[in-house]
Amino acid sequence: MGFDTLKDEDKRYIRSIVSSERFSTGESNLDLHSRDMSGHRASRPEAVVWPKERAEVSRILRYADQRRIPVTAWGAGTSLEGNPIPLQGGIVLDFSQMDSILEIRPDDFQADVEPGVIYKDLNHKLRHTGLFFPPDPGAGATIGGMIANNASGIRTVRYGATKDNVLRLVVVLANGEIIEIGNRASKTSSGFDLLHLFVGSEGMLGVVVEATLRLVGLPAEFASAVATFQTVEDAGKAVFDIIGAGLDPAALELLAPECIDLINRQKNLGLHISPTLFMEFHGPTRNHLTEVMGIAEGLCREHDCREFRPGLDREERDRLLEARYALGDMIRQDRPGHVRISIDVAVPISAYPEMIAFAREAARKAGAGAAYTFGHAGDGNIHLVIETERGNREAWQRIKEANRSVVHKALALKGTATGEHGVGIGKAQFMEAEHGRSLEWMKKVKQLLDPHGILNPGKMFP
Amino acid sequence: MGFDTLKDEDKRYIRSIVSSERFSTGESNLDLHSRDMSGHRASRPEAVVWPKERAEVSRILRYADQRRIPVTAWGAGTSLEGNPIPLQGGIVLDFSQMDSILEIRPDDFQADVEPGVIYKDLNHKLRHTGLFFPPDPGAGATIGGMIANNASGIRTVRYGATKDNVLRLVVVLANGEIIEIGNRASKTSSGFDLLHLFVGSEGMLGVVVEATLRLVGLPAEFASAVATFQTVEDAGKAVFDIIGAGLDPAALELLAPECIDLINRQKNLGLHISPTLFMEFHGPTRNHLTEVMGIAEGLCREHDCREFRPGLDREERDRLLEARYALGDMIRQDRPGHVRISIDVAVPISAYPEMIAFAREAARKAGAGAAYTFGHAGDGNIHLVIETERGNREAWQRIKEANRSVVHKALALKGTATGEHGVGIGKAQFMEAEHGRSLEWMKKVKQLLDPHGILNPGKMFP
Repeated sequence: MGFDTLKDEDKRYIRSIVSSERFSTGESNLDLHSRDMSGHRASRPEAVVWPKERAEVSRILRYADQRRIPVTAWGAGTSLEGNPIPLQGGIVLDFSQMDSILEIRPDDFQADVEPGVIYKDLNHKLRHTGLFFPPDPGAGATIGGMIANNASGIRTVRYGATKDNVLRLVVVLANGEIIEIGNRASKTSSGFDLLHLFVGSEGMLGVVVEATLRLVGLPAEFASAVATFQTVEDAGKAVFDIIGAGLDPAALELLAPECIDLINRQKNLGLHISPTLFMEFHGPTRNHLTEVMGIAEGLCREHDCREFRPGLDREERDRLLEARYALGDMIRQDRPGHVRISIDVAVPISAYPEMIAFAREAARKAGAGAAYTFGHAGDGNIHLVIETERGNREAWQRIKEANRSVVHKALALKGTATGEHGVGIGKAQFMEAEHGRSLEWMKKVKQLLDPHGILNPGKMFP
Repeated sequence: MGFDTLKDEDKRYIRSIVSSERFSTGESNLDLHSRDMSGHRASRPEAVVWPKERAEVSRILRYADQRRIPVTAWGAGTSLEGNPIPLQGGIVLDFSQMDSILEIRPDDFQADVEPGVIYKDLNHKLRHTGLFFPPDPGAGATIGGMIANNASGIRTVRYGATKDNVLRLVVVLANGEIIEIGNRASKTSSGFDLLHLFVGSEGMLGVVVEATLRLVGLPAEFASAVATFQTVEDAGKAVFDIIGAGLDPAALELLAPECIDLINRQKNLGLHISPTLFMEFHGPTRNHLTEVMGIAEGLCREHDCREFRPGLDREERDRLLEARYALGDMIRQDRPGHVRISIDVAVPISAYPEMIAFAREAARKAGAGAAYTFGHAGDGNIHLVIETERGNREAWQRIKEANRSVVHKALALKGTATGEHGVGIGKAQFMEAEHGRSLEWMKKVKQLLDPHGILNPGKMFP
């Protein structure tokens, strides 16, 4: 694809669409939109625009499409695979000013939102309704970013990923056309499912300007526990048994000892430095949860659980959850001069213990520096962060090799290269191995919806 | 689209792919594949083929694509909107001989199946694993047919529709190409979601030859109840309250008095002839279910529930469920000389009482003959069957008018023209009103994947 750079007249025209305060070519704004939270190389856009209305988005896209100018949508920049880095320059559409919660319909368990709404703000706003939007990516993500990446997180094991909780979208296509997809009914068999084509498409097929989200009721009761094990593999086996027993956890998180050590150091938590499972159950009554917790403890004990500590109070639970959410940040902050790769594979649950063992061995063999294993274990999702000091090219090569071997192992186990971070820049290299011939059809769908390839170019396809 | 008819040489070639026993142009076979369970006019194919392997499907499609011969996939013929009626003749691919359960992986809560597997047979086979495939369309549908229509049913209110329980597909495209989509991980953010594009596409984008299904654990305990009301609208309000209270029913079925009367007559059940809710809850313990049932009863009483009968034993529950499953058949058999329209709208749950009242009034105004209101109330899904004696053209016009007004009312309430039956022939007229401009993009996707339009032509698009 040959793209054009932004000429002065382009800038004038685009500025005229959104007004001067919402258009910038200033260095600091370009810098702020040149990187996400991954280690991928920064790449600056030529201009940043803050749209407030779908009509503005439509006009900008129509113009950019005619002029062959790349356009990349931007949420909060919290993605972990370079997903919104504007590799080819052009325009970044920053949705932070298009952040209204348009309507909450508690009777229908639904909310209509603009893409710039911050996930945490939405749930804060919802708390008085007794409802919440569950996909829970942890980071300060926007709803638009979550939809783009089909984000998921700690609660997904029970409540599904973003794709399971979106009912309707308004999307601006590359040519500026605005289409509405889906409806407010809780189920439909009407027409081809274009909705799920846009969820997880990383801003490459269209730009979401409104979404109707499915909400769920806050649980009447919850119960949390921490279990510590002799080995990470034992913890993995307990995960498999807890899921297999149908206990339906609302969180089932694995933390290897190095993660616990880091959390202790940074959050002063005084946890036992061992392979650890954090689990939470939601239910209608306390009795029910006591019973479930008893079964979970029994299963953990069968795998040489050292300590099983149920009955965390709300404060203790919140501190642990907060530490889990912040783990990625802590890893980044612990060694600021380091570079790292975040692995995000997911495998069928029976392969989880094998996948963990393989991943840790790969990290050990890379011998490059610190490595952290953790993940949404209940979904078969493993994160492995391997890092080394910036500039150590030899170690960096070994880390990249470890990354490749872990992803190919996940694919051999019939899993996926990315459970929740999306493809972005870093996973593009695995798409052919994962999708085979269907990758060609993804390219054709891209060509159909974005014939000039202006939307977030350079991503996903190797 | 100009299609060609089957010439003798075409028949010879296709017969050579599958062998003579699995190829027929016999009258009775053509007749058997000319109609489904709807009232839509029969239309015969020119040949019926029973493939056993994906390679056969691939060769047939490649040939048919080159020769511009229509190909329509066929499951069990239980659909309700003419979905598999071969409107343009050509070849019907009957999957009844491609019906192997390829692998059950209880540890992963998954099964790999061929499309001809009958839904009920799969669950029968699974019963010893403690797992089941939940979408539950009621009829003797095949898995392939369920995927084609994104079928759902009585259990969907808790366990989701077919689209929520499919992880991976092998699809033969119109050009004969075989692609594999998805993987065995329970979640993924890898690439565009082509999987959901094929689920619910009614055999118009490709032909599914294998699927990996997500299974769920059988509940440890269940509890059922029957509640009778003064009016259907009261029952509708109770539905709204039960869903709103987050009681998470595993079934919440509405049956208007005329349905109860029919069930009593045909199944000798002796139920009270009143507007009735059948509900079921699944849970881990009896105590929990007793508590939930108490809340449900309280909510029903608030809407002048006449009788609330909890604690049905398994036999009683099974008889009721069986009667509910058979209701469509009973209606058809009760007046064999009649023709009827099955309405299948779904609306946001808060609009359910209004939608019911409107639908019943529309049926009353049509004044054409018997009308039956029932549905998967917990999903906001309403079925209204209106019938009249064959040949009464004037009454038939009024029924069609009632159908149109009910669907347009559902769309005005931000619902959908079809909650679970699919578009087929009967709903095509509403697609423009429901989807607006996104319908054009559905057509473009069709054009991309099936450029000669050979797959199930004449459906979905008005």
